[in-house]
Amino acid sequence: MTSYHALEQQFARIDKIKDVIGLLNWDTETIMPDGAAEGRSEQLSTLEGMAHRLLVSAETGELLDKAEAAADGLDDWQSANLREMRRLYFHAAAIPEELVEANSKAVSRSLMAWRQARKNSDFAALLPYLKEVLDLQRRIGQIKGEALGLSPYDALLDTYEPGMRQAKIDLLFTNLRAELPSLIQEAQARQASLPPTEALTGPFPIDLQRGLGKKLMAAVGFDFERGRLDISLHPFCGGATDDVRITSRYDEERFISGLMGVLHETGHALYEQGRPEAWRHQPVGAARGMALHESQSLLIEMQACRSRAFVHYLAPLLRETFQGDGAAWSADNLYRDLTTVKPGFIRVDADEVTYPAHVLLRYDLEKAMINGDLRLEDLPGAFNEGMKTLLGLTVPNDGLGCLQDIHWPGGSWGYFPTYTLGAMAAAQLFDAASRAEPDVLPGIGRGDFGPLRSWLSAHVHRKGSLLEMDELLIAATGRPLGAEAFQKHLRTRYLEDRHQA
Amino acid sequence: MTSYHALEQQFARIDKIKDVIGLLNWDTETIMPDGAAEGRSEQLSTLEGMAHRLLVSAETGELLDKAEAAADGLDDWQSANLREMRRLYFHAAAIPEELVEANSKAVSRSLMAWRQARKNSDFAALLPYLKEVLDLQRRIGQIKGEALGLSPYDALLDTYEPGMRQAKIDLLFTNLRAELPSLIQEAQARQASLPPTEALTGPFPIDLQRGLGKKLMAAVGFDFERGRLDISLHPFCGGATDDVRITSRYDEERFISGLMGVLHETGHALYEQGRPEAWRHQPVGAARGMALHESQSLLIEMQACRSRAFVHYLAPLLRETFQGDGAAWSADNLYRDLTTVKPGFIRVDADEVTYPAHVLLRYDLEKAMINGDLRLEDLPGAFNEGMKTLLGLTVPNDGLGCLQDIHWPGGSWGYFPTYTLGAMAAAQLFDAASRAEPDVLPGIGRGDFGPLRSWLSAHVHRKGSLLEMDELLIAATGRPLGAEAFQKHLRTRYLEDRHQA
Repeated sequence: MTSYHALEQQFARIDKIKDVIGLLNWDTETIMPDGAAEGRSEQLSTLEGMAHRLLVSAETGELLDKAEAAADGLDDWQSANLREMRRLYFHAAAIPEELVEANSKAVSRSLMAWRQARKNSDFAALLPYLKEVLDLQRRIGQIKGEALGLSPYDALLDTYEPGMRQAKIDLLFTNLRAELPSLIQEAQARQASLPPTEALTGPFPIDLQRGLGKKLMAAVGFDFERGRLDISLHPFCGGATDDVRITSRYDEERFISGLMGVLHETGHALYEQGRPEAWRHQPVGAARGMALHESQSLLIEMQACRSRAFVHYLAPLLRETFQGDGAAWSADNLYRDLTTVKPGFIRVDADEVTYPAHVLLRYDLEKAMINGDLRLEDLPGAFNEGMKTLLGLTVPNDGLGCLQDIHWPGGSWGYFPTYTLGAMAAAQLFDAASRAEPDVLPGIGRGDFGPLRSWLSAHVHRKGSLLEMDELLIAATGRPLGAEAFQKHLRTRYLEDRHQA
Repeated sequence: MTSYHALEQQFARIDKIKDVIGLLNWDTETIMPDGAAEGRSEQLSTLEGMAHRLLVSAETGELLDKAEAAADGLDDWQSANLREMRRLYFHAAAIPEELVEANSKAVSRSLMAWRQARKNSDFAALLPYLKEVLDLQRRIGQIKGEALGLSPYDALLDTYEPGMRQAKIDLLFTNLRAELPSLIQEAQARQASLPPTEALTGPFPIDLQRGLGKKLMAAVGFDFERGRLDISLHPFCGGATDDVRITSRYDEERFISGLMGVLHETGHALYEQGRPEAWRHQPVGAARGMALHESQSLLIEMQACRSRAFVHYLAPLLRETFQGDGAAWSADNLYRDLTTVKPGFIRVDADEVTYPAHVLLRYDLEKAMINGDLRLEDLPGAFNEGMKTLLGLTVPNDGLGCLQDIHWPGGSWGYFPTYTLGAMAAAQLFDAASRAEPDVLPGIGRGDFGPLRSWLSAHVHRKGSLLEMDELLIAATGRPLGAEAFQKHLRTRYLEDRHQA
């Protein structure tokens, strides 16, 4: 057996353990009895420790060196697989064991403090814990950065989005940053000139909502033979290879956000279910980074399912499902509801026009904190100032401000920009798919996602991690990642759409 | 750290992996999408391989030798823990790796063939696969037996029931074997002299059945903070530490067998939930063998929940739950229904009087096959002859005969006798509990299982594997395992009960 093939075996074993971790995490969020929490965390840390030790073992390191020295005979997929193996090994092995442990303990303490602090809007209570996490993230960024010849923030970015750099993001965000305030204002002004949205009044029985969600998931292309839909407090897409489990939450009084949540997670799930079968359990068979993953959920939710075409298909289905009647149930009212722009405090509740403002703010702040240009003590002030500038809002307390997100206390620094990079990729890919396959949008209008799915499968899902993100985008759309398609999409949908009633 | 403490760490890690395996098995039987089967089996074999390698590692062997040499300072629990560690190590390490693998592959092929063969009542189709499994079991029994100074069958028994020997079982079964035919006949004759049982007619909505099951589980003492009730094709008790998950199945036309299934599994669950907290994840904290485990389910289902006292509590609850009315819903009719004796082909559907006949037959046959006194080709004839002798039934086909059980094709030889040993232990423990705590039976009559549960907790559950089974029974009941209490229970309930209407 060659070193390369020995590596395939080693990484397959690691991936199977990760599959189990994915299933346990799903179980924790959906059905685990409360009293099992301690046991669950023991199980998870046992498995995570095992996967980590397998990955950073001296054996893996030696095999990588040997396989790279003998890489001439490898084909494109194998070479890419070896490159991804090295990347995973680097990110895991770069950090000394004691720093890994210190970080994991600091994160867990900080998350515990954060849950309380958010509830009480008490930033001071989180501060010492968050400081510890930030210090460790800076050290991790520094160590990885030195090895990679990168700044600490770039090294952290690379964990979530291989090859992504601050300079590149700054560039991608420049035009968006400039255009966003006027875009938000104009979209709101235009909205105000239209008839007000009529609210749909419930109750909407949960089993009907669930049934409708499953029907739409199937239409979009979710394979229920290899996945499930369940309920959790926060919707997510998880599970394992060929066992992709998405969740939603239901509100009897409102169904729109639950339904859009299902469609969002279905976009993630299509990516997971569509990964290349031949590279099952290999790093090259995995999804290509967080930005592209987010692009797949936003492509389904925002590009496809909030389009006029889809809403025309959806409206009669809703009337039928909930026995709805009257003007509130018209496609036009529904479309206005689904595309309402309204600045708010909470990122996860934001519409697609104001969402990037939340990301820009967090990106600027986390860069500054990692680079040492912003002290943690000054975070609340800087956050609130940013909300005022970007969205014109006065944050009433830190619970609705800098304490709202799990990412920083959870040790995920360098993650935030991937949301908006994903939105950009979604627009660019949807635009390319629509040009390449003229039936994409008409298909969506009939509830037939086949044409879109075929294109996504061929150009994104089945590529796994064969290509770097920009290579994939060039192959699929003719260009590297850019902001143009996204900004054009926002202008078209929110400023120029001429088909309003 | 002493060798003993290093062993505690090693076995805790193994136990946490086993917890995960338990949860994955639960998931497989309850909610896994069909297409995930291949991935699931990859996950399970990865984890099982890891747990096995940890257990049989040279390190574990050396630590055991050192800890045993320095065992003077250990307290009773630690000494028992070390004894159980050695036992687990022996059973795993005694068999060469290639034999373990050959066995696991043969079992998987044989189970696949068995599913078809049972459906088609085609013993010949299973024969070559089952032969392979039997040959491997005989080799495993021989290897372990040589190391332990035991016969192959005794060595296999020891896997499921530590310390159990064929000679002891033969002795325990002698009187039962002699008394059983007349007991079955007399019980049936007596039954025929009573008014016939009136059938309860449905439908019984499944959510009502489920609600009632949960209510009774709670009454018996199941802790829903540390466990769940779900649905599977075959009821079982599984899950993990502090996360005990039992399953049932429901039939809209009949609720009795589903309900009794829930109570049976609740008995297993109480044992699991009641294991000693201080020995969490240690071998000495585990349940003491299969016979005692079965004793706990039979104690709850048979001794407690098919007693007149409980039926008097249950009948009004049933009437209330299902809006039942009329003579069929009387406690007396229900009691006759729950204690009906009727020889049948299928072991798992048997009543408590005829059940031991099924076990005696299988015990005799598997002993003979392992000892080389019965050729596999002659199994169907011998099985059918035994059914005729023991239960007076003519087996119409092998699907209803020697193909009905999963144990032999599944490689579980030496398991069958534990069912009836468990029934004996259940009767003996329930008798002792009732004598020691006069409120046990009256409590059950009020739906208050507190007195019974306290006694079981103190004398069985919280003991874990501190004692060998007979030591535990002597401490709890004053005697080692015997057949008397069980036979007396059968006579009392089925021949002497004077409270019939």
